[in-house]
Amino acid sequence: MLGIDVGGTKIAALVVDGAEASVVRLQAATDERPLEAQVIDLASQAVGAAGAECRPQAIGIGIPGQVDPAAGIVRLAVNLSVNDLPLADLVAAATGIPSFVEHDARAAAQWLCKSSGAACRLAYLSVGTGISAGVVLDGVLVRGTGGLAGEIGHLVAAPDGPLCPCGLHGCLEAVASGPALAREAAAAVARGERTGLTAHATAAEVYRAAAHGDALALRLASEAGAHLARAIRGLVLAFGVERVVIGGGLSRAGAPFFAPIQEALADERERSQLIRAAVDPRIVELLPADAEAGTRGAVAVARAGLRRAVAQPFGQREVTGG
Amino acid sequence: MLGIDVGGTKIAALVVDGAEASVVRLQAATDERPLEAQVIDLASQAVGAAGAECRPQAIGIGIPGQVDPAAGIVRLAVNLSVNDLPLADLVAAATGIPSFVEHDARAAAQWLCKSSGAACRLAYLSVGTGISAGVVLDGVLVRGTGGLAGEIGHLVAAPDGPLCPCGLHGCLEAVASGPALAREAAAAVARGERTGLTAHATAAEVYRAAAHGDALALRLASEAGAHLARAIRGLVLAFGVERVVIGGGLSRAGAPFFAPIQEALADERERSQLIRAAVDPRIVELLPADAEAGTRGAVAVARAGLRRAVAQPFGQREVTGG
Repeated sequence: MLGIDVGGTKIAALVVDGAEASVVRLQAATDERPLEAQVIDLASQAVGAAGAECRPQAIGIGIPGQVDPAAGIVRLAVNLSVNDLPLADLVAAATGIPSFVEHDARAAAQWLCKSSGAACRLAYLSVGTGISAGVVLDGVLVRGTGGLAGEIGHLVAAPDGPLCPCGLHGCLEAVASGPALAREAAAAVARGERTGLTAHATAAEVYRAAAHGDALALRLASEAGAHLARAIRGLVLAFGVERVVIGGGLSRAGAPFFAPIQEALADERERSQLIRAAVDPRIVELLPADAEAGTRGAVAVARAGLRRAVAQPFGQREVTGG
Repeated sequence: MLGIDVGGTKIAALVVDGAEASVVRLQAATDERPLEAQVIDLASQAVGAAGAECRPQAIGIGIPGQVDPAAGIVRLAVNLSVNDLPLADLVAAATGIPSFVEHDARAAAQWLCKSSGAACRLAYLSVGTGISAGVVLDGVLVRGTGGLAGEIGHLVAAPDGPLCPCGLHGCLEAVASGPALAREAAAAVARGERTGLTAHATAAEVYRAAAHGDALALRLASEAGAHLARAIRGLVLAFGVERVVIGGGLSRAGAPFFAPIQEALADERERSQLIRAAVDPRIVELLPADAEAGTRGAVAVARAGLRRAVAQPFGQREVTGG
């Protein structure tokens, strides 16, 4: 199986064998070419590297945006500038391998739940170029009308906050994503604030500087952490999940990213009986940096897609390619 | 069946016969007595008024707060100052009638879904003294760990906003509930703003003044409407529901309450392709003022409770009284 995780700044591929052992790992920075060309390129490289003996039986692709998994179409991915792209068909036609698409965070949430079954009530919060969630309730992925359930990156974080690429002001994604942190850092540098950061610092550099005590970086990390803590409170209160796992590109910064979230949650617990009753801090976990939730989730999408294709073998719409 | 809807300012009771026709309607303003005394009082009056021929077989009680329906306990209702109250047992003991409790908005959401079955993906948003939601996905009520799912009144609306009774700042309930509107009106009057409102205006009076063109009232209604529109956006994006029904005490103001919500949603649609794709304005409805969703939902709780009690007759914990 081949899992491909499409992010805002990079695309990662993982080939596993029948025992889920890793065979090939590849990664490429995103560039200006159409998304399908970049995905096909990396998929072909991964298939080539895996060799004839480990040729993947299916390809799963995790996408940060609105996806129609049954039709294999990416409906709308604002951060990728993609609209109504029949990605599964295009990848299948180019590689000759059945291909399936799913929302990246939804795929990862299902993968995280795979061992807990019907008891699983979990939210996976992905924080990177975009912010979104995958929620599993009683073992079932919450997909919602149009597959949009979990798009919490565009819930309000601060109504008078900065403009979000989606067109609204103050979305969570506009205050706590990678581009948001980089923009805030650049603005502070331009204002002449004392910091070791440059005007072109990335979010990862902000968190590295925070780890070294840079005052501006610490403040930005703290503000983003408070917004993310409120989003976690929202996931727990709205869905009643009993586990929130945080992953995505920014989460790989580790403690400088996670500690401000934990501090903000502790502060909310101190202030509020409701939060003390509802949001036990132990339910919030940082995904280990080596967990590969994105590509592992995409591998699970490939496996599930192939299973459905085998169950409905007579030219059903879900079988593409191969 | 007897349904009792407990609100922040009043308690309503409805007795229906086997054909769901109304037999008795009663209402009382809440007072300083313990909640159980007020509920028992109104329940007893309703049972008396219904007479021996229409004696309810069960009592359902809708509560705005964290409820454990299986144990019949109100865990935490901040707006009622109630903690771990075994309300079902107390009402059953006083009336001799099996009694059941449920979250009010969750009860109403299930009642609204009763005719659409497994296809139902609906959120009921209750706006009154408190704000909360009941969400049904694919015909199943989202209950969540501890029965807290849907407590969106304590999601962030404005991080630097006013203090909420829950202890946090800027909760949705602290900017768009009845008490929030009354507080904002009083503050504006104290600042000397031109208005026909007095310093003691209620939210209902604010909406009435808005209907008559009072500039302050119109501004307050517009601000609350914008916050509620963002909450509706949140319900649609987070859960992927395809219908949002708005009820609760404030909604009875009708157009002066609903029009600002619709305007804010139209504005979001104009600004954002994502919102145009995700939030069709036709999915948002105002519950008719005479719909009695609170008491009808509570009647459904009584009926469902009795059905479970009959199905598990051997002294299971869920049967109380009778």
